[in-house]
Amino acid sequence: MKDLKFTEDLSRDDVTLMALSAKKKSGLTWEDIAKEVGMSPVWTHAAATGMAGMPQDKAETLVRVLDLPAEAVDVLTECPSKDWSRDIPTDPCIYRLYEIAGVYGPSFKALVHEKFGDGIMSAIDFDMEVTRVEDPKGDRVKVEMTGKFLPYKQW
Amino acid sequence: MKDLKFTEDLSRDDVTLMALSAKKKSGLTWEDIAKEVGMSPVWTHAAATGMAGMPQDKAETLVRVLDLPAEAVDVLTECPSKDWSRDIPTDPCIYRLYEIAGVYGPSFKALVHEKFGDGIMSAIDFDMEVTRVEDPKGDRVKVEMTGKFLPYKQW
Amino acid sequence: MKDLKFTEDLSRDDVTLMALSAKKKSGLTWEDIAKEVGMSPVWTHAAATGMAGMPQDKAETLVRVLDLPAEAVDVLTECPSKDWSRDIPTDPCIYRLYEIAGVYGPSFKALVHEKFGDGIMSAIDFDMEVTRVEDPKGDRVKVEMTGKFLPYKQW
Amino acid sequence: MKDLKFTEDLSRDDVTLMALSAKKKSGLTWEDIAKEVGMSPVWTHAAATGMAGMPQDKAETLVRVLDLPAEAVDVLTECPSKDWSRDIPTDPCIYRLYEIAGVYGPSFKALVHEKFGDGIMSAIDFDMEVTRVEDPKGDRVKVEMTGKFLPYKQW
Amino acid sequence: MKDLKFTEDLSRDDVTLMALSAKKKSGLTWEDIAKEVGMSPVWTHAAATGMAGMPQDKAETLVRVLDLPAEAVDVLTECPSKDWSRDIPTDPCIYRLYEIAGVYGPSFKALVHEKFGDGIMSAIDFDMEVTRVEDPKGDRVKVEMTGKFLPYKQW
Amino acid sequence: MKDLKFTEDLSRDDVTLMALSAKKKSGLTWEDIAKEVGMSPVWTHAAATGMAGMPQDKAETLVRVLDLPAEAVDVLTECPSKDWSRDIPTDPCIYRLYEIAGVYGPSFKALVHEKFGDGIMSAIDFDMEVTRVEDPKGDRVKVEMTGKFLPYKQW
Amino acid sequence: MKDLKFTEDLSRDDVTLMALSAKKKSGLTWEDIAKEVGMSPVWTHAAATGMAGMPQDKAETLVRVLDLPAEAVDVLTECPSKDWSRDIPTDPCIYRLYEIAGVYGPSFKALVHEKFGDGIMSAIDFDMEVTRVEDPKGDRVKVEMTGKFLPYKQW
Amino acid sequence: MKDLKFTEDLSRDDVTLMALSAKKKSGLTWEDIAKEVGMSPVWTHAAATGMAGMPQDKAETLVRVLDLPAEAVDVLTECPSKDWSRDIPTDPCIYRLYEIAGVYGPSFKALVHEKFGDGIMSAIDFDMEVTRVEDPKGDRVKVEMTGKFLPYKQW
Amino acid sequence: MKDLKFTEDLSRDDVTLMALSAKKKSGLTWEDIAKEVGMSPVWTHAAATGMAGMPQDKAETLVRVLDLPAEAVDVLTECPSKDWSRDIPTDPCIYRLYEIAGVYGPSFKALVHEKFGDGIMSAIDFDMEVTRVEDPKGDRVKVEMTGKFLPYKQW
Amino acid sequence: MKDLKFTEDLSRDDVTLMALSAKKKSGLTWEDIAKEVGMSPVWTHAAATGMAGMPQDKAETLVRVLDLPAEAVDVLTECPSKDWSRDIPTDPCIYRLYEIAGVYGPSFKALVHEKFGDGIMSAIDFDMEVTRVEDPKGDRVKVEMTGKFLPYKQW
Repeated sequence: MKDLKFTEDLSRDDVTLMALSAKKKSGLTWEDIAKEVGMSPVWTHAAATGMAGMPQDKAETLVRVLDLPAEAVDVLTECPSKDWSRDIPTDPCIYRLYEIAGVYGPSFKALVHEKFGDGIMSAIDFDMEVTRVEDPKGDRVKVEMTGKFLPYKQW
Repeated sequence: MKDLKFTEDLSRDDVTLMALSAKKKSGLTWEDIAKEVGMSPVWTHAAATGMAGMPQDKAETLVRVLDLPAEAVDVLTECPSKDWSRDIPTDPCIYRLYEIAGVYGPSFKALVHEKFGDGIMSAIDFDMEVTRVEDPKGDRVKVEMTGKFLPYKQW
Repeated sequence: MKDLKFTEDLSRDDVTLMALSAKKKSGLTWEDIAKEVGMSPVWTHAAATGMAGMPQDKAETLVRVLDLPAEAVDVLTECPSKDWSRDIPTDPCIYRLYEIAGVYGPSFKALVHEKFGDGIMSAIDFDMEVTRVEDPKGDRVKVEMTGKFLPYKQW
Repeated sequence: MKDLKFTEDLSRDDVTLMALSAKKKSGLTWEDIAKEVGMSPVWTHAAATGMAGMPQDKAETLVRVLDLPAEAVDVLTECPSKDWSRDIPTDPCIYRLYEIAGVYGPSFKALVHEKFGDGIMSAIDFDMEVTRVEDPKGDRVKVEMTGKFLPYKQW
Repeated sequence: MKDLKFTEDLSRDDVTLMALSAKKKSGLTWEDIAKEVGMSPVWTHAAATGMAGMPQDKAETLVRVLDLPAEAVDVLTECPSKDWSRDIPTDPCIYRLYEIAGVYGPSFKALVHEKFGDGIMSAIDFDMEVTRVEDPKGDRVKVEMTGKFLPYKQW
Repeated sequence: MKDLKFTEDLSRDDVTLMALSAKKKSGLTWEDIAKEVGMSPVWTHAAATGMAGMPQDKAETLVRVLDLPAEAVDVLTECPSKDWSRDIPTDPCIYRLYEIAGVYGPSFKALVHEKFGDGIMSAIDFDMEVTRVEDPKGDRVKVEMTGKFLPYKQW
Repeated sequence: MKDLKFTEDLSRDDVTLMALSAKKKSGLTWEDIAKEVGMSPVWTHAAATGMAGMPQDKAETLVRVLDLPAEAVDVLTECPSKDWSRDIPTDPCIYRLYEIAGVYGPSFKALVHEKFGDGIMSAIDFDMEVTRVEDPKGDRVKVEMTGKFLPYKQW
Repeated sequence: MKDLKFTEDLSRDDVTLMALSAKKKSGLTWEDIAKEVGMSPVWTHAAATGMAGMPQDKAETLVRVLDLPAEAVDVLTECPSKDWSRDIPTDPCIYRLYEIAGVYGPSFKALVHEKFGDGIMSAIDFDMEVTRVEDPKGDRVKVEMTGKFLPYKQW
Repeated sequence: MKDLKFTEDLSRDDVTLMALSAKKKSGLTWEDIAKEVGMSPVWTHAAATGMAGMPQDKAETLVRVLDLPAEAVDVLTECPSKDWSRDIPTDPCIYRLYEIAGVYGPSFKALVHEKFGDGIMSAIDFDMEVTRVEDPKGDRVKVEMTGKFLPYKQW
Repeated sequence: MKDLKFTEDLSRDDVTLMALSAKKKSGLTWEDIAKEVGMSPVWTHAAATGMAGMPQDKAETLVRVLDLPAEAVDVLTECPSKDWSRDIPTDPCIYRLYEIAGVYGPSFKALVHEKFGDGIMSAIDFDMEVTRVEDPKGDRVKVEMTGKFLPYKQW
């Protein structure tokens, strides 16, 4: 007979669903939650949904703010598998990010090499903000990213 | 016998190769060229390589700056096919952009909806800059994008 | 032990199944439901099945007309993930739409650029109707779409 | 030694390239050409570029209008292979058509069945127009299609 | 708490499984069942397994012959999603049909155009029979299909 | 320096192109050519285009009828690679064959097993005819295939 | 309310799992089981796991030897769907078979045509053995297959 | 100006085409050639077509037997890239090998593990023969392979 | 009615989940566990999670150290299916391994052939260590692998 | 008429072919060349074949050692597109690297996180050596890699 004690663990997916459900019930925005946690909204959302691991104190704050079960702290502090689909998503809001990468990616590469030489912008030592910019012709979404330049080692 | 007059046209790919070759020979940077053309470096590179159509005057300037054949103006002012590969590129410098879209795309979507409601950031009414930010722990690549928010029509 | 309060939320898929089931039981057509909701049939079906978010009052009407649980209003007013399969569907009725896009897409692009210049027909600021046109040689399906023209920003 | 007489035939791709090149040189729009040919612009573009076969007289007119070689008539009147890529195109202007098919395809299917019963809209006995609609909030692209309804045979 | 009344509906997959299970228990062949229903065996199997919608009286007969629950009639008379996998099946018995389409498809196309002009054999106004033909060198499977020829509209 | 004698061989693709070109110039139909060769039209087209190998005498007749170079006989009598694309073709005329295989394939399998037991219809010991059937509601394409039933060996 | 009598049927997957579980518990090897059944080990394993249908008496023996439920006989004697993944498996032990087919497949084809003419080795009228061959440099796996040669019909 | 001396090298593909062309002209079978070379026919075909590297003396013999240019020896003795398509081939003669691997691969794995423990049959320390076996019910293709068993290292 | 005794077996996936859960609860590292088992950390993790089969005594130790159910020993000593996804993983930590294989794989091949001749590095008779190397410019991950060289058999 | 001056540039592919051809003619090993260049063999091969950019002095040395045209220096010092195929290669020698990444990748990830926390091994600040290790049971290929650990930024 299978041992039930092993099937009761909270999985990373359980915690993500709990966090999204609790957030909706709480009436808080991600901006609000991020302020409580003391981090940026992009990172806070990513960490709450399994795309970043949290330090112990941040995880405890998140659990308190969203009234999650205490066991969720252990899950939130793990190093997650940051799996994303190699099939480009079709939801129009997310798809446009990939379209931008597709259309302007070669221009990005040309300018990085022009300004830094051979290497890449890190996606690990990286940060990102999303803000609303007022504009009389229609407000604009602003995305800002910075990533450390990493030169290729030559050995 | 095939009619040769139809095979002598400059194709969009011909002009892209010519522009890249001429740029290398000229010793100019994309920053330099963009300044001459009076546009931003990202857009100038995109337009020179077939990811944007140019207004007549800008195309004429580019042809002059890079010493391209006069027929290139016609090609540069066409509406190009902005084809990009749905197979995510593997060159590490470009791949990282897709990794960012994959890891942080859902957070981007959550924040856009939180700040604007149901809709998207336009990839058409859109601009992007790439700059170098000095940092004592290693200089950083900065990418800034803005796109007009487009709300879904309800009808 | 897992916390049951988080697993009882209605998901977007639950509401879609409920709406389709309730619609069948009600004997109403989508035309009827759309009239009640005060919107077009295409949009009403899309919103009921998770391809559009509804304003609060429209969601309340739909819930009343289809006798759905009150909690469904919250789900219907969210910004949904409009995910569709990048594998072209095989059901013959839907497949033909993609065949049309494949066969006549390049002609569509040529005419859009001829009439408007470089840019696209928005799929966001967009509407669509499907009607029956009587014809002595066999009635015809008529599809009408309009989308705002969006010119590429040049920056 | 290979027999040259077989390699001098005009291929369908040759004629498409010739037609696009000649059209550009002529300064005519597809509207103009279609008027000369006496057919609609969508069909005329499709036929000129290999997505439809032309009747003899229409092919002769097109060859005359665009000053193509006389041998092109034979190629234009063949039944072409209407091959299109099952990889959804990435050019934003064409991609949006597929996004529309993806997001609203299930609604289209529901309404076709509601109005006609089990069957499909033909993509063969089919026509399509693309027009510009003035709108103070920004002009709109209008696409109209009609296709004969084909009921499934039951046997 | 989720509303159970919506999860008790028979799905199209439920009815397919029920029909296959009941058929096996009944000891009837598809030939037998088709004779009872008054239709051909290919269509009867397709309709019982979700690849065709049934008229009311045929569905009632099938439900009676296979002793299915009365609610199955509603499911059998719906317009089904005729989804099939774009990944060519590997079961050798079905795969051979695709191999035939692959090897002889171009010959089929050439002969259709030679005999009818530009157009297609309809897969909607279509019928198919599978029979056993005795042969001293080994009996043969015979497949006969007819489909209405649909000429391309020129507009 | 590369040895030219090896690059002058006629390839299978050369012969296919030559046969299609010569057929067009000759004004013959595939029916006519097949009659000359003394075989069926489907097989004759398949053999002329590389989907079947020809016996020596049939190849000589085909070369004579189409006025192909004598070296083509050697190519026509080889065992060809009958390669076809596992990406289902999109040309509507050929696609419909795959749609039929997709929608009715499981019914075909069920009936083969019911009539013969466990095994397959051979695609090798196989023949196929395509004919035109007059019909007051619109003429029909008729496809007839027979393939030897091959029972699975049990060992 | 759903009818439970239809969900209690043993599926083909149920029987496969039962057979693998019972085999492990029994301590028998596939060699042992095959000897009991009076067939070869490859075929016996294939039949027990759904890749071959069994004659009635063989199925009854297998059910007795493995102490499976009596209803499993009906499942074992069905004509199964011999589905296998067109994604080449990655388990190294199975992958090597595909690597062999990939590297030496063209040589196999060349030799079959040289020895037999145009046709194939049947995978239906086919048998296969796997044995251990002692070798002082390391024992070897030996695989022997024979398949009936099937010449292409010419018609 | 490009340096022509680098474009005159014989490539591996050149040598494969030369070998196939010369073999056809010579009237020799692969059996004959293999006998001359003193190796088996499968390996000889593989080596002549780029799926195995040849020792110096074998390459010299092959060049002499087929009257290839002397420079081909260098190409034949290189370590080739044994690239094969991960898209399973569709030519029926080769496809059947993959069908066998798909249908009987799991049985092969089960028997290898039963006879040897955890490990694989090597595809490197491997040999293969293809022979014709007379049979009154139709001659059979026989394929024999042996590969060294490689146990997984445990460390 | 289905036989419950067959559904209570521990599957390989069950044991993997149990091992990961028990490891977390135990507070042990993989280094600690490997030391107890007397094997290396990479192999111990692989064996605990289904990518290697364990000898009886090692499995018993692991079960004791992690306090797993006794039945897990049987599962741990089986020859597992070492299935991995042919879709390259997207988790950045694992993806980088594939990027290395992609960028430097051809260099690896060139050097193996230069040092050993035609053959491969075995992935079966193989071992791997992962260690931390201190470095003032930032600590480094060190990966060491050795695999037996296997020369291609020539036969 | 096309401008020839733009088509005479050496491309990155031209230089790779030249380097491989010149290396073969020179009789040098990659070890030899690397020693001349003063870098490691893996990096030297990667740089010569377009998977790394070279500093000016290293490029000049390589051009001298291999007697390449002087223009090759410009190409060798560019930042290349390090494109590799997301279709896992099938050449057995390279495939085994991917198999290792597939089978042991999760173990690698677990140990990196255990030893360093959340982050990755850089594939940019990275080096790799391939050596031959003598072993009485058969010599072994040894691969050593080190990459800087990059912790995820939390912001």
